Amino acid sequence: MARLTEIGWEDFAGLSLEAKKPYLEREEGDGLPYHTLFAQQFDRSCLERLCALANRIRFINKSKEGALYLKNVLAHKRAMLYFSQPSSRTFLSHLAACQILGITTGSVRDAATSSEFKGESREDSIRTFSSYFDMIIMRSPVQGLAEKMAWELSNSSRPVPILNAGSGKDQHPTQALLDIYTLVRSFEEKGGIDGRTVTFCGDLMRGRTVRSLSYLLTNFKNVRQIFVAPPDLQVPADVVMILAKKGVDFEVTDDLKAAVKTSDAVYMTRIQDEWDSSKGESAKIDTSRFKFGAEELALLRPDGVIMHPLPRRDEIATCCDHDPRAMYWRQMRNGMWIRAALIASTFGFERSIMECGY
Amino acid sequence: MARLTEIGWEDFAGLSLEAKKPYLEREEGDGLPYHTLFAQQFDRSCLERLCALANRIRFINKSKEGALYLKNVLAHKRAMLYFSQPSSRTFLSHLAACQILGITTGSVRDAATSSEFKGESREDSIRTFSSYFDMIIMRSPVQGLAEKMAWELSNSSRPVPILNAGSGKDQHPTQALLDIYTLVRSFEEKGGIDGRTVTFCGDLMRGRTVRSLSYLLTNFKNVRQIFVAPPDLQVPADVVMILAKKGVDFEVTDDLKAAVKTSDAVYMTRIQDEWDSSKGESAKIDTSRFKFGAEELALLRPDGVIMHPLPRRDEIATCCDHDPRAMYWRQMRNGMWIRAALIASTFGFERSIMECGY
Amino acid sequence: MARLTEIGWEDFAGLSLEAKKPYLEREEGDGLPYHTLFAQQFDRSCLERLCALANRIRFINKSKEGALYLKNVLAHKRAMLYFSQPSSRTFLSHLAACQILGITTGSVRDAATSSEFKGESREDSIRTFSSYFDMIIMRSPVQGLAEKMAWELSNSSRPVPILNAGSGKDQHPTQALLDIYTLVRSFEEKGGIDGRTVTFCGDLMRGRTVRSLSYLLTNFKNVRQIFVAPPDLQVPADVVMILAKKGVDFEVTDDLKAAVKTSDAVYMTRIQDEWDSSKGESAKIDTSRFKFGAEELALLRPDGVIMHPLPRRDEIATCCDHDPRAMYWRQMRNGMWIRAALIASTFGFERSIMECGY
Repeated sequence: MARLTEIGWEDFAGLSLEAKKPYLEREEGDGLPYHTLFAQQFDRSCLERLCALANRIRFINKSKEGALYLKNVLAHKRAMLYFSQPSSRTFLSHLAACQILGITTGSVRDAATSSEFKGESREDSIRTFSSYFDMIIMRSPVQGLAEKMAWELSNSSRPVPILNAGSGKDQHPTQALLDIYTLVRSFEEKGGIDGRTVTFCGDLMRGRTVRSLSYLLTNFKNVRQIFVAPPDLQVPADVVMILAKKGVDFEVTDDLKAAVKTSDAVYMTRIQDEWDSSKGESAKIDTSRFKFGAEELALLRPDGVIMHPLPRRDEIATCCDHDPRAMYWRQMRNGMWIRAALIASTFGFERSIMECGY
Repeated sequence: MARLTEIGWEDFAGLSLEAKKPYLEREEGDGLPYHTLFAQQFDRSCLERLCALANRIRFINKSKEGALYLKNVLAHKRAMLYFSQPSSRTFLSHLAACQILGITTGSVRDAATSSEFKGESREDSIRTFSSYFDMIIMRSPVQGLAEKMAWELSNSSRPVPILNAGSGKDQHPTQALLDIYTLVRSFEEKGGIDGRTVTFCGDLMRGRTVRSLSYLLTNFKNVRQIFVAPPDLQVPADVVMILAKKGVDFEVTDDLKAAVKTSDAVYMTRIQDEWDSSKGESAKIDTSRFKFGAEELALLRPDGVIMHPLPRRDEIATCCDHDPRAMYWRQMRNGMWIRAALIASTFGFERSIMECGY
Repeated sequence: MARLTEIGWEDFAGLSLEAKKPYLEREEGDGLPYHTLFAQQFDRSCLERLCALANRIRFINKSKEGALYLKNVLAHKRAMLYFSQPSSRTFLSHLAACQILGITTGSVRDAATSSEFKGESREDSIRTFSSYFDMIIMRSPVQGLAEKMAWELSNSSRPVPILNAGSGKDQHPTQALLDIYTLVRSFEEKGGIDGRTVTFCGDLMRGRTVRSLSYLLTNFKNVRQIFVAPPDLQVPADVVMILAKKGVDFEVTDDLKAAVKTSDAVYMTRIQDEWDSSKGESAKIDTSRFKFGAEELALLRPDGVIMHPLPRRDEIATCCDHDPRAMYWRQMRNGMWIRAALIASTFGFERSIMECGY
């Protein structure tokens, strides 16, 4: 591994994601992240260890005794949730993950209530807040801010880990983790993810979850990826290039029904019109053929799964909600478990939880 | 009892409150609610058990050891406070009730910071949040939303109880509970509530607390109810009809002083002008004779009590605040205790708390 | 000591700070405050005891066992953070202090979400909130509100302590405590604060931190105070008069470099233009010579310290941030420790923490 204290900010910022990875690992050298900034930090071994830990935490938490054991694991730690971009679901999921492990939390959910109005820089604000806490979980519309803070704090007299809960348009690593964990759980007694077909459908151009999950799936063997979208919202060229380079079998199409028939998992996404220009170009796109309803449900194999990062609009008809293959609600709860696993491992408690008597 | 999983939403919604009651009880069949949606769920036996449990919790909490015992009772549970309608006092009271029992909490206090702006339905939002928590305490301006969510969650793969902390104009069941608990405490060594006279004064037309408390008092024997208000704000016909049907002795008047003289409890309320039309009709009503001040205090019997759901404006003069018969501050704190009792019973801990050694 | 129950509000409000002090002490008569309202409550003995307690808490918290011991000290208490004036850093610092001692908290961070809009008085709001909690930590733009609430609550049937976290323009007592604690720590193995020279620089007219710290330093022997500011922002006459009356050696100047050369501590502050009239008079003042940069850093003695209450703008160049003499980040964290010490002592746990086995 490398150390953030041994590299200047400009140099670090200029590295490729691949090259940044070792700088973000735990000092213990176990390959798990100290700062969690982007999905590319997770290789297959990391993913499998975190999924195993999440399974373990989920199991332990079933009994009152187990839940109380977990609440003691990090009861001596405090975490700061700095969410300058509104997001109740991501906020609550991280909060719940902290609570399961006994971490007490403080939060800033609105930058307007912070001192920023007194002319303070964002870096100063976050560094101040870090004085009171042992971890910073942050979500910000500012691209690269989580990375900058990770470098700053690692170079301060009191380093604390950063967990990126969404920054700018690009990264939202724990969303990718929960998607993988949901696939792992869905197929865990059926041979795993290797060899599966995963279909992505909707706004593939602007959804960062698609980008990250597509990348993480390349860690598994022979996973076929199908991208179903209107031409103006298809998966971007850089994602396609990565898949091509890695020799992944993939297909770009606009035929959802055909894709569903051959898929093990169908990952629906909503049109992200918050990124539209003022012209509202999304409204002019015909998205009617990119919705999952009763007809698609009938085509899905019996052990297939339907996923969605939520919030949804009408991409999945509510008539699918009670079908056992609808995984999107469980997917939410999986987010809580995998985040708890990630946080526990950040503080070095992977092994003690895996080996505890509960 | 009946099960929410055995009835469709439309059918359930069409039932009378009376007929809905059994669908909302705990599976254990002990008559206490699983979902708490409206005041009519509580019969005399329920009320007496909850008041006894609240007394017990209040007593146990007096010592540090007792307080720590209570903090362990539900330490393995997490509750979500979803308050899309602002209300600091109701929020904090439920929060404190959770904290007494060791429940950790997450909150959404402003629907604007939730994903609703991304086009998600309210039902989806609340169902998502429920993924992370073991109970939903909700307050919403949308009439019937709590009921809808109770049905939705009971029909999902992961049911959690709903506690209605105020919905629309109609229901605020825990407010009615705390009012009853305050009366129970006030008269507990003086023969109880049976045979008492309770006067309601102020805006009786639009105050949901009056409606609920009036109903719950019919569970007790020979309680006389006096309604004192300006003609345009008098108690609505449907409340009067229920009392008449149940054979309750009641009186409708505009003479507060006369009522105070014969009352054991005087329940003051403020003019709820937030329900006015844009014409501001409340401002045109003469409310000067519907205020409790030094003169009324002099007329109240020595063991009488003054109540108010708060917030108050000038319905009760501050000169009454230090009188031992002023119960409105203690009433607030009673709300915390009875809510703790309700939550403990929802999770099945009534008996273990009643029988613990503290 | 005297009792707030034995004096009317008008009489109490008319007393000098000196004369108010005994009314605010703990009943146990140990000289420490029950209500903490203004910096003048702390004499040298109080300051030294609180700093010793803060050191102890900081040390105990280093081990997991110690941290868990501390989290049990006040686990049976609940505190209310009522912040009707936005301030993330002060909020989070008090929150963290509560969490270290195991106090659970509730908060109101925006008066608009409270019932004030329903016409309730501020006093009623705070008294209601106090029903659910064992301590009120409050910050308000209303001068004197904390004092009024302390009197009100002490005269209610359920007194709880008030901790003033900033009221109006005048008082912010825990900021002064953390400044003193930072000086105590900086010089603790170098003979202490007595005989030191402390320079204040920036907006000395409107910064309440300068006012309070200058006062508290008079508790120590032979501390020389230097005030460096543009003429229009110099230290106010009443501060100067107190120093003169107490025979303190001080100097008023506009030469920062000269002051730095002879100082043990340099306390920088920002221009508080939020107090400007609409004419924005601050913008017309030349503040360029009142900034601490590389040149000043070179002049500061090797064991000198640089302090700042934060947030900063450009009063201290970021190039100073990594210098070991830059104390302003540590100063933030000191605020958390000294607040924990103050809260623990308010509830009478000074001795048990000082004497515990950790």
